[in-house]
Amino acid sequence: MERFDAVDVIRAKRDGRTLTTKQIDWVIDAYTRGAVADEQMSALAMAIFLRGMDMEEIRAWTRAMIASGDRLDFSGLSRPTADKHSTGGVGDKITLPLAPLVSVFGVAVPQLSGRGLGHTGGTLDKLETIPGWKAALSREQLMERLEDPGAVVCAAGPGLAPADKKLYALRDITGTVDCIPLIASSIMSKKIAEGTSALVLDVKVGAGAFMKRSEDARRLAEVMVDLGRSAGVRTSALLTDMSAPLGRTVGNALEVREAVEVLAGGGPSDVVELTVALAQEMLEAAGQGGHDVHAALKDGRAMDAWRRMIRAQGGDPEAKLPVAREKHVVRAERSGVIREMDALCVGIASWRLGAGRSRKEDPVQAGAGIVIHKQVGDAIETGEPLLTLYTDEPERFPRALEILEGSVTYDGLGPSGRGTVILDRVS
Amino acid sequence: MERFDAVDVIRAKRDGRTLTTKQIDWVIDAYTRGAVADEQMSALAMAIFLRGMDMEEIRAWTRAMIASGDRLDFSGLSRPTADKHSTGGVGDKITLPLAPLVSVFGVAVPQLSGRGLGHTGGTLDKLETIPGWKAALSREQLMERLEDPGAVVCAAGPGLAPADKKLYALRDITGTVDCIPLIASSIMSKKIAEGTSALVLDVKVGAGAFMKRSEDARRLAEVMVDLGRSAGVRTSALLTDMSAPLGRTVGNALEVREAVEVLAGGGPSDVVELTVALAQEMLEAAGQGGHDVHAALKDGRAMDAWRRMIRAQGGDPEAKLPVAREKHVVRAERSGVIREMDALCVGIASWRLGAGRSRKEDPVQAGAGIVIHKQVGDAIETGEPLLTLYTDEPERFPRALEILEGSVTYDGLGPSGRGTVILDRVS
Repeated sequence: MERFDAVDVIRAKRDGRTLTTKQIDWVIDAYTRGAVADEQMSALAMAIFLRGMDMEEIRAWTRAMIASGDRLDFSGLSRPTADKHSTGGVGDKITLPLAPLVSVFGVAVPQLSGRGLGHTGGTLDKLETIPGWKAALSREQLMERLEDPGAVVCAAGPGLAPADKKLYALRDITGTVDCIPLIASSIMSKKIAEGTSALVLDVKVGAGAFMKRSEDARRLAEVMVDLGRSAGVRTSALLTDMSAPLGRTVGNALEVREAVEVLAGGGPSDVVELTVALAQEMLEAAGQGGHDVHAALKDGRAMDAWRRMIRAQGGDPEAKLPVAREKHVVRAERSGVIREMDALCVGIASWRLGAGRSRKEDPVQAGAGIVIHKQVGDAIETGEPLLTLYTDEPERFPRALEILEGSVTYDGLGPSGRGTVILDRVS
Repeated sequence: MERFDAVDVIRAKRDGRTLTTKQIDWVIDAYTRGAVADEQMSALAMAIFLRGMDMEEIRAWTRAMIASGDRLDFSGLSRPTADKHSTGGVGDKITLPLAPLVSVFGVAVPQLSGRGLGHTGGTLDKLETIPGWKAALSREQLMERLEDPGAVVCAAGPGLAPADKKLYALRDITGTVDCIPLIASSIMSKKIAEGTSALVLDVKVGAGAFMKRSEDARRLAEVMVDLGRSAGVRTSALLTDMSAPLGRTVGNALEVREAVEVLAGGGPSDVVELTVALAQEMLEAAGQGGHDVHAALKDGRAMDAWRRMIRAQGGDPEAKLPVAREKHVVRAERSGVIREMDALCVGIASWRLGAGRSRKEDPVQAGAGIVIHKQVGDAIETGEPLLTLYTDEPERFPRALEILEGSVTYDGLGPSGRGTVILDRVS
């Protein structure tokens, strides 16, 4: 590999020049090895934040991050694979019904997931509330379980895109997180290294999402779709609404319970809509489009696949889920129709109740969270329950209630009903 | 002191907002204590590089760097003090004749200096070629020698503006050096902490200077003059030409020899012109203007002061200076008048011959460097000596000659003679 001087690379981006593929390959490799120091990479990250990268640079940056570690290969499996990635939201339990649902149609789902941080929950935290279920799998176990039962949600090993892990920790403390080229390359380097041949992105937009503005979300989706395709992965993206929480539960075990309702053919309409839409996208991308996905939720096939998936990782799908020791009901102060429910406030309140963590070493409460009795579009009468807050530690209620103050807007005017959560598709 | 979050401070500057004095006080103090990490400060430095700081921010930044360490106080001396700072050039030996010259008129000169790095030489490296001379003085010795002989050139102790030392080392590896707010606050925090009540800045412009363009040099001078005055130091600046080397020698002992010629009433006209102009500025700033400075060079008073200054730090002003073991003469390939001599090339060639260092631990050769037989404006005949290169290690000649290739432009047209080196004054 050609050698460069780190300061020359930083200066080039600082002065608004385009980095060459060779410079990018070198700087990512040298950073992974420790030959480029953290303080140099943080200066470069800030220069990228303020100067941007063009598509060719972002592709090179992503390839270099993939090349910093291992890359899984599912091409030896007997069936195609499809993966889904969500940019993170409040009440986003979609992976739970989605993975088994897609597996029903002969497409394997390798869902390498993370734990929650801040106001958005983590899929592993949710599944870990199921008695006996374990997130850790070896590579061999992952491959076996992709053959049977065909849907796997597990922890990503440390060997995939180590440059991204190092860079992500650095960006977090240097004010360089919310930068589309760095977000897109971070997500896509991990997803491409995970080896799937088809990928569907769920890019959230709105108060509870990382991207508050739809133009930013669209741009992020476009960049990620380009990165996936450039790497030979069939990729598409849905832009979905995260102004209000998804579904009617926020919190680990509470969300598992709602996911099981969806797998049983019920559940909130927004969760069902998004689960079905993403399943269709994934099947299409895996070359298995045209199925009646909805039917598999209604006739028990998805539920069977869920049970097999949970059992394959030691979990008991029939076991009672943990319930928080304490609850507090918030009631409507007047009658009206719910117009807005701020997803960020609900997410932060749930986090403060114990469902989320501030640092990756923190524990989370299985039963903590919020049940939403009336969602956007629902009518409510004075004194009816609006939200129920759950926690094991009642001293957490006042802070959560303070955060929720003013987060729900309702009036008595106009029609009720919530619109679609799917705002657009990028492919 | 109010506490802040480092990421909030970085984000504020990243997004183009003005930092408050409280934020700046906190971030500099926390960085000095290690509570703000190097990687955070480098991201902030890059954000400052690209977003800038306004004058109020630069003043606060400078005050905070001064407050990070000790501050000397010369107010107890029986005479006024005046200090000079040069932004660094090739062949810039002006401090050597200047300090004793100013002391002749009853103004004490505390010249806390550094060693050279890269293509510009360091005053301490030059004086250390004088047998016996030592740069290290205690605070008490510094005070004593300011009373008598009145001119002191010594190493700055570690206690002045430690935040600047830490930040300068970081900027050097993160591509954030050439940024006027950071340069100005770095220079002025040290100079103000050194306790002088009058300061003259020699801001170099041109190929061999840090500032290549006169508008940048002027802006740097204006910012530094503002910072000095805001801190109660009478401050002015000269913008001086560094397109060609200053004088006719570049290299440590070679430059001492030329300084002694000036102190003996001779020497190159550009060195004499700048020495006299800076002396007049310093005397004026110290409230002692109106003297015939030139006379003190001609009548031996400046030379006497030099000898006392050298002896006071253990040096022998009569001792023979070191001479390099090997030399190589570069001759004119044709006749003509010298139009340009690239100061940067001459500086780098001298560095490669052994006169400069790449890292602060490197040794320098006392005798290495370049003698310039014909300067800009001089006529030269084919075969006459143009430059003589000196080093102890003849294997260094080819690289130096390669660097000098094309660095001197001469033709047979037009008038000869070099103009003034003083381009402008900022006060």
